[in-house]
Amino acid sequence: MSTASPSAAPVAVALPSHLARFQAIRRQSVDLCRPLLPEDTVVQPMIDVSPPKWHLAHTTWFWETFLLREYLPGYEVFHPDYAFLFNSYYNSLGSRVNRADRGTLSRPPLQDVYAYRNHVDAHMEQLLALHDTLPAAFGEVLELGLQHEQQHQELLATDIKYILSTSPLAPAYQPAPARQPQTAAPAVAWLPVPGGVHRVGFEGEGFCFDNELAPHETYVADFELQNRLVTNTEFLEFIEAGGYQDFRYWMGEGWDLVQSQHWTAPLYWVKHETGWHRFTHHGLVPVEMAAPVTHVSFYEADAYAQWRGCRLPTEQEWEIAARHFGATPEGGTFLESGLLDPQPLSPSAPAHQCHQLLGDVWEWTYSAYHAYPGYQRAAGALGEYNGKFMVNQLVLRGGSCATPESHIRVTYRNFFHADKRWQFTGIRLAR
Amino acid sequence: MSTASPSAAPVAVALPSHLARFQAIRRQSVDLCRPLLPEDTVVQPMIDVSPPKWHLAHTTWFWETFLLREYLPGYEVFHPDYAFLFNSYYNSLGSRVNRADRGTLSRPPLQDVYAYRNHVDAHMEQLLALHDTLPAAFGEVLELGLQHEQQHQELLATDIKYILSTSPLAPAYQPAPARQPQTAAPAVAWLPVPGGVHRVGFEGEGFCFDNELAPHETYVADFELQNRLVTNTEFLEFIEAGGYQDFRYWMGEGWDLVQSQHWTAPLYWVKHETGWHRFTHHGLVPVEMAAPVTHVSFYEADAYAQWRGCRLPTEQEWEIAARHFGATPEGGTFLESGLLDPQPLSPSAPAHQCHQLLGDVWEWTYSAYHAYPGYQRAAGALGEYNGKFMVNQLVLRGGSCATPESHIRVTYRNFFHADKRWQFTGIRLAR
Amino acid sequence: MSTASPSAAPVAVALPSHLARFQAIRRQSVDLCRPLLPEDTVVQPMIDVSPPKWHLAHTTWFWETFLLREYLPGYEVFHPDYAFLFNSYYNSLGSRVNRADRGTLSRPPLQDVYAYRNHVDAHMEQLLALHDTLPAAFGEVLELGLQHEQQHQELLATDIKYILSTSPLAPAYQPAPARQPQTAAPAVAWLPVPGGVHRVGFEGEGFCFDNELAPHETYVADFELQNRLVTNTEFLEFIEAGGYQDFRYWMGEGWDLVQSQHWTAPLYWVKHETGWHRFTHHGLVPVEMAAPVTHVSFYEADAYAQWRGCRLPTEQEWEIAARHFGATPEGGTFLESGLLDPQPLSPSAPAHQCHQLLGDVWEWTYSAYHAYPGYQRAAGALGEYNGKFMVNQLVLRGGSCATPESHIRVTYRNFFHADKRWQFTGIRLAR
Amino acid sequence: MSTASPSAAPVAVALPSHLARFQAIRRQSVDLCRPLLPEDTVVQPMIDVSPPKWHLAHTTWFWETFLLREYLPGYEVFHPDYAFLFNSYYNSLGSRVNRADRGTLSRPPLQDVYAYRNHVDAHMEQLLALHDTLPAAFGEVLELGLQHEQQHQELLATDIKYILSTSPLAPAYQPAPARQPQTAAPAVAWLPVPGGVHRVGFEGEGFCFDNELAPHETYVADFELQNRLVTNTEFLEFIEAGGYQDFRYWMGEGWDLVQSQHWTAPLYWVKHETGWHRFTHHGLVPVEMAAPVTHVSFYEADAYAQWRGCRLPTEQEWEIAARHFGATPEGGTFLESGLLDPQPLSPSAPAHQCHQLLGDVWEWTYSAYHAYPGYQRAAGALGEYNGKFMVNQLVLRGGSCATPESHIRVTYRNFFHADKRWQFTGIRLAR
Repeated sequence: MSTASPSAAPVAVALPSHLARFQAIRRQSVDLCRPLLPEDTVVQPMIDVSPPKWHLAHTTWFWETFLLREYLPGYEVFHPDYAFLFNSYYNSLGSRVNRADRGTLSRPPLQDVYAYRNHVDAHMEQLLALHDTLPAAFGEVLELGLQHEQQHQELLATDIKYILSTSPLAPAYQPAPARQPQTAAPAVAWLPVPGGVHRVGFEGEGFCFDNELAPHETYVADFELQNRLVTNTEFLEFIEAGGYQDFRYWMGEGWDLVQSQHWTAPLYWVKHETGWHRFTHHGLVPVEMAAPVTHVSFYEADAYAQWRGCRLPTEQEWEIAARHFGATPEGGTFLESGLLDPQPLSPSAPAHQCHQLLGDVWEWTYSAYHAYPGYQRAAGALGEYNGKFMVNQLVLRGGSCATPESHIRVTYRNFFHADKRWQFTGIRLAR
Repeated sequence: MSTASPSAAPVAVALPSHLARFQAIRRQSVDLCRPLLPEDTVVQPMIDVSPPKWHLAHTTWFWETFLLREYLPGYEVFHPDYAFLFNSYYNSLGSRVNRADRGTLSRPPLQDVYAYRNHVDAHMEQLLALHDTLPAAFGEVLELGLQHEQQHQELLATDIKYILSTSPLAPAYQPAPARQPQTAAPAVAWLPVPGGVHRVGFEGEGFCFDNELAPHETYVADFELQNRLVTNTEFLEFIEAGGYQDFRYWMGEGWDLVQSQHWTAPLYWVKHETGWHRFTHHGLVPVEMAAPVTHVSFYEADAYAQWRGCRLPTEQEWEIAARHFGATPEGGTFLESGLLDPQPLSPSAPAHQCHQLLGDVWEWTYSAYHAYPGYQRAAGALGEYNGKFMVNQLVLRGGSCATPESHIRVTYRNFFHADKRWQFTGIRLAR
Repeated sequence: MSTASPSAAPVAVALPSHLARFQAIRRQSVDLCRPLLPEDTVVQPMIDVSPPKWHLAHTTWFWETFLLREYLPGYEVFHPDYAFLFNSYYNSLGSRVNRADRGTLSRPPLQDVYAYRNHVDAHMEQLLALHDTLPAAFGEVLELGLQHEQQHQELLATDIKYILSTSPLAPAYQPAPARQPQTAAPAVAWLPVPGGVHRVGFEGEGFCFDNELAPHETYVADFELQNRLVTNTEFLEFIEAGGYQDFRYWMGEGWDLVQSQHWTAPLYWVKHETGWHRFTHHGLVPVEMAAPVTHVSFYEADAYAQWRGCRLPTEQEWEIAARHFGATPEGGTFLESGLLDPQPLSPSAPAHQCHQLLGDVWEWTYSAYHAYPGYQRAAGALGEYNGKFMVNQLVLRGGSCATPESHIRVTYRNFFHADKRWQFTGIRLAR
Repeated sequence: MSTASPSAAPVAVALPSHLARFQAIRRQSVDLCRPLLPEDTVVQPMIDVSPPKWHLAHTTWFWETFLLREYLPGYEVFHPDYAFLFNSYYNSLGSRVNRADRGTLSRPPLQDVYAYRNHVDAHMEQLLALHDTLPAAFGEVLELGLQHEQQHQELLATDIKYILSTSPLAPAYQPAPARQPQTAAPAVAWLPVPGGVHRVGFEGEGFCFDNELAPHETYVADFELQNRLVTNTEFLEFIEAGGYQDFRYWMGEGWDLVQSQHWTAPLYWVKHETGWHRFTHHGLVPVEMAAPVTHVSFYEADAYAQWRGCRLPTEQEWEIAARHFGATPEGGTFLESGLLDPQPLSPSAPAHQCHQLLGDVWEWTYSAYHAYPGYQRAAGALGEYNGKFMVNQLVLRGGSCATPESHIRVTYRNFFHADKRWQFTGIRLAR
């Protein structure tokens, strides 16, 4: 997940609360890392994953670079090498550590990164005290910094999971909840959505990323969407029907991966004598059959849909449906729940409503991540936030169990390459 | 370029002429290879390029596999190993030579491939004599075979160019035309196209590939298109302004390529003391400034557009504009001209008309190559023709100087990965 | 196989015959390529193999570069780009085509390479007419050129075999000899060789490569050598005993290759329902059980020896034994026989003699290819002939069925990396 | 550096002290890691380097596997997964973590590894109390375990250096000694060594690795050796003379590396405005000119020798010279000194003595690491200790500043691939 430069839309940072909000969001990043040992915060078992220590420092670097150095008179950087060490991908801001080498650096150690955070937080608090005297642009970048930190919280949750999963010891990040596994999900239903010219993209007040702009008309034909996410039960039918062995359901590049990577199930699934298990934040546990399937690539989501004789929605269809059904976060699973796994839909959920649109898992769409009509990259380094990624990736919608609830909305566009599986990604069918 | 299974639309193969048409198209493939030496037909200097010998055999294998074996009673295959050797990518039809290894096979030699062609052609002529007694499906696959052979003619032209270009001897495929280079193109003009709900995709009589179906509504806002292609003069301004050295204009993955591949100009451009030259089918010649720029990747096309403060059209905009302006092949450069290079627009071309939409160069669009609404893969092996490529590529429109004129139409969707440069690809700006 | 700069030993080119010898050796290279089609002369199916066209041109370039340009007044090079195209590895002589890209060049075609040969041969004949007027250094480089051309004849034979082997058509280079396969070899015997201080390395009259110098003392303990080469029968016992599945017999790097490359038998072996076959210059034929095993890597030769509880000889032991037993080419199989495959030892061969030391297969030794004491690289480009390869390779001794008989001697040191299998390599055991 | 199975020579473990010796050596490993943070013990910045945590656990696994499980009745392994996690390369003992993935595992954390060490040490102490009742084989493996642990102490020292070096922060492992840098080394002198048949290899009492056996005769001609190691001053002359830019001094594979890896100086050298610096265990410091050059590959050592018109000694010459000059550890720098960097030779060292043969830096020889005559691999897993590495590497002699003093002797054979530079490797010239 990458993030975006601030919208041109009026930004309404609630003045009395901005300090509290800054502190709460900053604290949330640290809380996520609390169960980790220093060793866990260093490693990078694959290139998409960043060491937690790096996330903690990079988000801090963002505040230092875009706010403290710009707006706090006399501010001195914590350490002159940190700009090189903790820049993610901003060419405007000079050279940086190769992404693939983030896991080779043991220094600075975690304790120094916490000192860096404290230093920056203390100065940010000074700066926030001056809030009313600062230009409007300050407020915009402040808001962007908060959103940026929330994006990295989701990455922290998913990267930590991947890091712990690589050990044969299958260590648990936290104890499992005391709930009984649910085996049956309510029956699926197809919900019609009327087509025509609809308006999509962000408008109104509040924050959005630049990739949600400009709002614009689009035409879709009538379509139907399933009222809930695809479950593990349903996906297991695909596995057992030989779906991973039959090229006819697969995109060509996906089929190449199935063969070269020996994919036979979603990421983190392991077949034991006693049945399928999954690695989770609670260690290795039996697959909960009624829960939404997650950690699938676009290729798997698409092949599953082909096998069912259905398809994935486009991002326009998804957004139009979300508005049509009045999607809200209520009932969805978000980062704040601490559950860090998508939850089964209640058996009593009404069949005629559209459930789980927000939270639980990011829903793959069959839409390339391209600029909207009228999209403009921002000037300066923040112009690199989103625009340069707008080719060769696919849009995902709706947020996941690792997304902060306050971070998501129906116009939010997340994006990944078609082969990625380490995020909480899932499937909703359309036709 | 890949090809598609036949449309569900009524196919109207003109009965009296089908034999003549078959013979003419088959002959055209051989004619293209006539200037080559046997050695030229074997090599594969990069994975996208296939040896000409392979193209000649693979197109023949298509006729043998999909028509002779199906419809000609008692037909025996020319050689039992050729199905393995000359299958391109059909998983349905068994294993095959790795694509990257096509250039390691010296055998069968060119003369055997011609014997194979003669064998298959003779039997196809027998089969075509039975045409009226055969089911409708035969006519559909016959038409597909002809279109397929034309697609490979374009690949032959571009692959031959690439093969010859790798030699420091810069050998010419054919002599240069006697024309004087044209230095000045007519001034560019922006032509408005009204937005709204438009219908796109193929409908009506005649052949189309399955990827042009189903016809459907789409919404676009008002937009403007340039009345001609971007010229070498214009692109050279981008080069000289440092466009290849400034990351701000580039997609991230494009910028990585610019650096790792040391791109500083379009493919085939070489800077001599006497100025820029290009490798062409006539050897190394000075860049003709008024001609359309070609052999650019999507990344270069997009960066150029960004630098001009414009953008590339979507494929919907391109098709709507092509209908709006009544695009016809007239005045375009196609394979039949034998020129094998895009031609400059006449200085007297009227500024208010939209020129060069068909022929000369494939125009990159900013549209991912995805299935149209209502698209269905065909059953059987031909279902692999197009559908499995519908992710991670971009659509190009309009055909090129290497496309047979009878092969192109305004609904035609070509597709390549964003980094490909060896086709005759070019740029038209929108805003 | 690489070659060496001329020895400091007195060179005795027999004056009356030097023209005839030049012509005979040059003709032999062309004769080797006569059964090939132009397509066969272009491809490079793996990096160790060079296209036959390249060998024909490179050997010609050697004459042009080191003799015609140096000694023939007014000589003009045939083509200014050929120095770039056909330099093998001489840094002293400027840049060159990447070795891995030799098979991507279709031009110059074979006919131009023959024209190049004719041009150079005609001028060489002029130059040889001046022989008696030229300095001694001329005679030394002349001799080196002849030896160099013979080395490439061996490579031509083995590279042609590899090229033809990659086609599923298994084409034959020439018809098989009419001989009945021999199933039984004479029983093996161990022959003792007395140890002590021995002299090794070339001395006396005639040509040698610089890597055979300086002659020097070496100490070996008493040892025994087998009286003949390891046969296919014997090696098949290793295969059937699970030798390729048991890491205990293998060097660590060899075992990695066995697993990653899925080695289960020597190169070119294929298991059919009717038993093991081998690809040869006569196409695919049943393995002749009494013949020496060939196309094995050092790793396989060493693992075989370990499994038998024996070892490979060192190069010192091999040379001392060859002198001790008075090894001669008589009875060995060389290039001139045209058989291009090692031959079984006659059942009546006396057990107490040491057979097959020269010809048939190169014998892997357990000696690293290092400089002899007192070795000196020649000055200039020819100093790159041998010296820069003297690390990370192993010595092979005795020549093979693809070595010209006049080219081999008991002090000759060939060398390859431990994993190479496409030469005619084989095994003799010591203990 | 790998290690070897125990010799057949009589092993003389001093009985009263074996417990003390075990404890001292085990403590030394922990002492080496004391200055590290937990984060430092996890990462693997290149494949040759192992995480310190892994070294601490792997040496412990050795004791558990080869001694506790074999000899201590009722012993239960500390953790069932540790055999998979901490096996280095023993195929006999089952599957294991890929070497390249050792740095992706954050778990078990350092504290668990220390608990593992304590558990095994406590049980080893129980077992050692039974020493006199155990078979002789126990004593041999006990000795091997101690030697093995010492080998990993050297690797710990060099791997820690490499790990810390990757950070732009250039963190110091320990403070620099208070000594003044020495700029001038005593003049070099050539010392003659008489040739003839000499005996090499280990004989007598005490421990040796199996690769030092069997002792045997070898012949060398008269030669001369330099009386001290090559210094930084001398090597800088090579750099400044353009040695890294002139292919004539280099082995071919070395020259390829110089170009592809952009080598311009030994590993860890950095050119600052104020002159050359080196990364050391004390951070980045100016190059001490009189100190021996270190962190050079065989290619650099050999190229330096070529440039000087000299050569490297063979391992036989080195050992013969070491005996001839009566080399002792006295005056050498070893691990116990804590200096962790080779030290300059005292200006007053007598010119006619041969200095620095033991300690300071491993001296590259021009000898392939092959089995000695009569070498036998041990049975069982310990047979994999040394034998399977005996090809494609070169021998180094003499130990380094990171070698425990009690671990080295004149017959000791260390070995690395020609391109390795992260060990304390250096140069002594012969002629």
